[in-house]
Amino acid sequence: MSESSLLKELVDALRCLPGVGARTAQRMAFHLLEHDRQGGERLARVMAAAMQNIQHCERCRTLTEQTICRLCSNPARDASLLCVVEHPSDVVAIEQATAYRGYYFVLGGRLSPLDGIGPDDIGLDRLEQRLDEGSVQELILATNPTVEGEVTAHYISELAAKRQVSTSRIAHGVPMGSELEYVDSGTLSHAFEGRRKY
Amino acid sequence: MSESSLLKELVDALRCLPGVGARTAQRMAFHLLEHDRQGGERLARVMAAAMQNIQHCERCRTLTEQTICRLCSNPARDASLLCVVEHPSDVVAIEQATAYRGYYFVLGGRLSPLDGIGPDDIGLDRLEQRLDEGSVQELILATNPTVEGEVTAHYISELAAKRQVSTSRIAHGVPMGSELEYVDSGTLSHAFEGRRKY
Ligand SMILES: [Zn+2]
Ligand SMILES: [Zn+2]
Repeated sequence: MSESSLLKELVDALRCLPGVGARTAQRMAFHLLEHDRQGGERLARVMAAAMQNIQHCERCRTLTEQTICRLCSNPARDASLLCVVEHPSDVVAIEQATAYRGYYFVLGGRLSPLDGIGPDDIGLDRLEQRLDEGSVQELILATNPTVEGEVTAHYISELAAKRQVSTSRIAHGVPMGSELEYVDSGTLSHAFEGRRKY
Repeated sequence: MSESSLLKELVDALRCLPGVGARTAQRMAFHLLEHDRQGGERLARVMAAAMQNIQHCERCRTLTEQTICRLCSNPARDASLLCVVEHPSDVVAIEQATAYRGYYFVLGGRLSPLDGIGPDDIGLDRLEQRLDEGSVQELILATNPTVEGEVTAHYISELAAKRQVSTSRIAHGVPMGSELEYVDSGTLSHAFEGRRKY
């Protein structure tokens, strides 16, 4: 790659994308430079703006460029329902797959004492405040069905129990040990409908 | 994706990358925003610089941010050898796989009358000037072994013949109908060694 150090840098920078190795990164760089400069310029512009402006919603902790995200700002949603998920991508998956009309709370991870991730690191202090507001009647636990996801769900159910808020856990069809984000729409929708008291 | 229009825009912008569909683009966007903001910022910066500054070398037409690329500027290469390839990525592949020490000429495509791509569109006017300079003694035709690549090689061999410049064609081991860029190093190196008079 001796002809251009900037090209080499671009190939290297592209490798920050998940699943992109040296060969794929090189193909991407050449494709943009030879066939889609406009696309590359737009990507650079949007990427810079996104990295700088997208932060976490102060209410639900999902990713947004606003202080309070559009979903939290929507007064037409059902304030008696709050769905707890691990990742912002889970919100997208649930919105696309189900008819759920309540609000969300995004942990941004799961309890993992071995990695030093405790309740405050996944925003449970803020979730408690949210429950203390008094409008949530059902807390839907949609953490991933992994060991740590289950532990997190259990921990949160106790926070809810203390406040007489009922909890449910999405159920049927989500294969154990998998990541919620990659489940197909039908399974996810079914799991939502079939949620049971936790 | 109703929580953020900028996130939606980022996902959309990422789809300019070859082989990246909606799902992969979404995974990439979330990965950068949640786990690698620095990587995303660097990618944005390098991408912008690359799209703006990388142009074609005035001598060999490969991609470079300099007027004359590093390879063309290297006086230690053998000026009696000139290798003609279709794409800048072919130069990288040959440099990595072979012991070739001559110079290159990058067509940026191949003759394709049906698509309206004629000799001047692939820089053959400039290649003729290059041959007229008189130092090239062997022109190595390394266009892809496709129908259009062969037609292009044949056309160029006639330009060389008019000037008493001998031509060779890389040979053994490159599977017909494939793209030179994706051939493994050993095969490509072998093909280079085994080139025959065209
Ligand atoms: Zn929100
Ligand atoms: Zn050059």
